[in-house]
Amino acid sequence: MDDRIILGHGSGGKLMHQLITDLFFKYFNNEALKKSTDSAILEIPGMHLAFTTDSYIVDPLFFPGGNIGKLAICGTINDLAVSGAHPQFISVGFIIEEGYPLTKLEEIVQTMAFEAKKAGVQIVTGDTKVVNKGKADKVFINTSGIGIIKDEHKHIATGNKIAPGDLLFVNGTLGDHAMAVLTAREDLPLRTDIQSDCTCLHHLIENILDAGIHVKFMRDLTRGGLATVLDEIASGKNFGIEINEKDIPIKESVKALCEVLGFDALHLANEGKVLIVVDKTDETAIQEILHNDVLGKSYRMIGKITDNYKGEVVMNSIIGGKRLVKMLAGEQLPRIC
Amino acid sequence: MDDRIILGHGSGGKLMHQLITDLFFKYFNNEALKKSTDSAILEIPGMHLAFTTDSYIVDPLFFPGGNIGKLAICGTINDLAVSGAHPQFISVGFIIEEGYPLTKLEEIVQTMAFEAKKAGVQIVTGDTKVVNKGKADKVFINTSGIGIIKDEHKHIATGNKIAPGDLLFVNGTLGDHAMAVLTAREDLPLRTDIQSDCTCLHHLIENILDAGIHVKFMRDLTRGGLATVLDEIASGKNFGIEINEKDIPIKESVKALCEVLGFDALHLANEGKVLIVVDKTDETAIQEILHNDVLGKSYRMIGKITDNYKGEVVMNSIIGGKRLVKMLAGEQLPRIC
Repeated sequence: MDDRIILGHGSGGKLMHQLITDLFFKYFNNEALKKSTDSAILEIPGMHLAFTTDSYIVDPLFFPGGNIGKLAICGTINDLAVSGAHPQFISVGFIIEEGYPLTKLEEIVQTMAFEAKKAGVQIVTGDTKVVNKGKADKVFINTSGIGIIKDEHKHIATGNKIAPGDLLFVNGTLGDHAMAVLTAREDLPLRTDIQSDCTCLHHLIENILDAGIHVKFMRDLTRGGLATVLDEIASGKNFGIEINEKDIPIKESVKALCEVLGFDALHLANEGKVLIVVDKTDETAIQEILHNDVLGKSYRMIGKITDNYKGEVVMNSIIGGKRLVKMLAGEQLPRIC
Repeated sequence: MDDRIILGHGSGGKLMHQLITDLFFKYFNNEALKKSTDSAILEIPGMHLAFTTDSYIVDPLFFPGGNIGKLAICGTINDLAVSGAHPQFISVGFIIEEGYPLTKLEEIVQTMAFEAKKAGVQIVTGDTKVVNKGKADKVFINTSGIGIIKDEHKHIATGNKIAPGDLLFVNGTLGDHAMAVLTAREDLPLRTDIQSDCTCLHHLIENILDAGIHVKFMRDLTRGGLATVLDEIASGKNFGIEINEKDIPIKESVKALCEVLGFDALHLANEGKVLIVVDKTDETAIQEILHNDVLGKSYRMIGKITDNYKGEVVMNSIIGGKRLVKMLAGEQLPRIC
């Protein structure tokens, strides 16, 4: 195998077959994929499926705490998991710029295989396209995913059981991913020790669901951050959301960087953080689970659903005032995921 | 809505929400999508599923006979259909270059909605990313698809029932898509009336399956063309393939262009052509169906599976000789789909 991707790797001919056999099959090793059928044939008992898709265009491809491959697997797994689904199958579509080093691609693929295996999810079908130099930025990845949803978790994706009194939890500090990616950009003279929180959350989420916690809604806090998710939940509803600034977990290093750059951590993307809305009767039970899980130990209860502020999200600030929390109107950080 | 895509359209904030509501919801109009859940929730009875993915990077985006949107829907539907599946659900992931005109994007989206509706397939989940100008070439689209496979069609995707004596059919002329795209490229001083054959084939395929034809294998003849598919079928097998050059349908205009450019039509991509391998007892029955279908009326029986030439594909040429047919070693036409 040559050490760079050339146009022939995306041609449908021999070079592409070689790439598939030598690289993708090597790491994405399962029967459904290796049958080389145009569609992966999945045997699933009759039940509700979750099906999701995401393209990843993060810049740079490698950042402290992860790379685009980890992001592509965990992002899609998390999308399935927050819908109350058990993630099962993933598809992968690569768009690769001519000239991209194969060793780097292999590193990405390897990471994807590792994360998928750790998560117990199979990458069952894929596609590779190569474009001329300058027509794409190194590597873009699309992953689509299928998961199975139990009957009792069907309501979670829609959030239609959210009601005043429900409590809001996040499983850890906000903004780590966005700041790790930003500081990894070569054109920015910033160096910190911030690592991306990029990780697959479904084991944590399944522990919570399996414990019988009454989860009303979940959403991973990616592009747009916590503020966007909260705004989406409250918008147009007959309830409001009240959160407390003092309870929102943000690392000191992230806070400092936000001050320098003029960012609001509530808008920053995370890739291993989830907002969980639970019935108030489960306050103690969910805290115990979060506390005992490596992905939840920095959890905080950040606020609640309320009869006040209908359709709005209000934050009680540390200095005693209140402010409205809104999703961003424009662009904050492009190519963060 | 402004008339150009800006970075904010991919930010996860308000502009993206607007784009989703004003454009995608407008055309991709179904309940599962409009619930805006991270994963589409699909209710499917327990059976075998087909799940496929493809990214589309065709250049130019608009060509005689279609555009990238039509390609993205039909390509994924065809991948499901040739697996013996009934296509049901599609996901769409856009990667869009900053500055791309919204009206053009709308045209693409509209085409996708039209083709999906005509095909009876729902676009149930999606994703939009925007990259800086110069970091992608206008628009890339990923579609993933899910289909349901009946028990009696489970073998079709693998082709493990192919046996000597089986007959090979194609549903029409080869090379039209590749030549239509090529001649649409502005930097080539070629003008012809060749139209892409881009179309969704599953109604034709379902007619064949529903008629009880013993289909051993099908494959749509995309990147790499007929030669690649035949080579894949025969490679490493205990049978060979014999085809007859005189029976391979190629338009005179495509033939002429191939001669000028030095291409072999057997390697050219099609987007509405399928190779169908059937039991010889069905020779008359399948010809009747193809003959009566608008997508099959230029069909030809091109050859057969044979005990000779084990592992090889041999073509009886018009001038009386024989030649081996192989998949391409390198690159022929980049960005054809």
